[in-house]
Amino acid sequence: MARRTGRRPGNPDTRESILDAARAAFADKGYDGASIRAIATSAGVDPALVHHYFGTKDKLFLAAMQAPMDPLDVLDAATEGDRDEVGARFVRVFLRIWDGPGGAAGVALLRSAVGTEWTAKLFREFVVSQILRRAVPRLGLDEAEGRLRVSLAASHMAGIALARYVIKVEPLASAPAEAIVAAVGPAVQRYLLEPLPGVFDLAESATPPA
Amino acid sequence: MARRTGRRPGNPDTRESILDAARAAFADKGYDGASIRAIATSAGVDPALVHHYFGTKDKLFLAAMQAPMDPLDVLDAATEGDRDEVGARFVRVFLRIWDGPGGAAGVALLRSAVGTEWTAKLFREFVVSQILRRAVPRLGLDEAEGRLRVSLAASHMAGIALARYVIKVEPLASAPAEAIVAAVGPAVQRYLLEPLPGVFDLAESATPPA
Repeated sequence: MARRTGRRPGNPDTRESILDAARAAFADKGYDGASIRAIATSAGVDPALVHHYFGTKDKLFLAAMQAPMDPLDVLDAATEGDRDEVGARFVRVFLRIWDGPGGAAGVALLRSAVGTEWTAKLFREFVVSQILRRAVPRLGLDEAEGRLRVSLAASHMAGIALARYVIKVEPLASAPAEAIVAAVGPAVQRYLLEPLPGVFDLAESATPPA
Repeated sequence: MARRTGRRPGNPDTRESILDAARAAFADKGYDGASIRAIATSAGVDPALVHHYFGTKDKLFLAAMQAPMDPLDVLDAATEGDRDEVGARFVRVFLRIWDGPGGAAGVALLRSAVGTEWTAKLFREFVVSQILRRAVPRLGLDEAEGRLRVSLAASHMAGIALARYVIKVEPLASAPAEAIVAAVGPAVQRYLLEPLPGVFDLAESATPPA
């Protein structure tokens, strides 16, 4: 059945060219070094078109990663309310996304992140620019300690996603989400907001990477 | 410079044929369903040759996975000594392997595990037969609770490996191992041996997977 189409959401080939150029720029130059202007040039389009299709650089990065959610939304949902329940809310919101229609995209994102050195680097830029950099001030954490705290919490949740949705180890794979919230919430709470004796002294005494 | 060779460790092609047949059998039939006899038949060799090259079925599985360590050794090292320090010892031994020459094999194993549905299934069989089934009795855990406890601990350590060695998120990637032991050891200890209020009630009330 023929029907009239409304305003089209842009030429799919052009969109894909922009996303390819964005992935290359974010992986090669990092989030800060990649500019919308350079991405547009590389894709052979006007920078205004990149903004028109994708909005901000953050939104372009999310689209390039085919991320199942904006980490900012998870952060908003987890940090509103009682500070003693931040860990539980992080785990609950995270599992709701993975248990929902975004789960398949999450598995694809994890597969891609782990696939090669290049995709791992792209994913690292994503974690730093979209998660760590936003979560540390939002949680009111000290800058020096905050990144280690957030990366411990995020890596724990990534491990749960790996075991539950990719490897599908039982009983973790079929456990109800609230059982996992009860188990993992306190661990995430501790990483983010509770004392971690010894951890930062040891981390600070380390020699910087070569 | 020519020199005499001693007894050869077997024909490389034959070894590879056996390992290919083993991977297919473990993924398709599971650990329990895969027999040395059927693997030998599939590889076109005598079962005695499989035993000669690889020893037990467990050792054959480890070789087929190119595992950087035998989980049994990690379990031995972690469970000997003070029960209050089991979590810290698990994390310490685990990081020692990944920080050492076995680290590259660990990254390859994680990449392979996450790569496809088939390799994920193979890795799941590995986790169940080589880790969960052994760790639950060794830690003196209740069978009903033990698998969820061990899979929570193992998935947490897998997430740390993912973030530190594959994605290489800072400051986790360059933090000294003992800082990570101080941070993650208590979480692993809690999963394995401390009360987890609410977790098992919720897990038991779940409907079984369809």
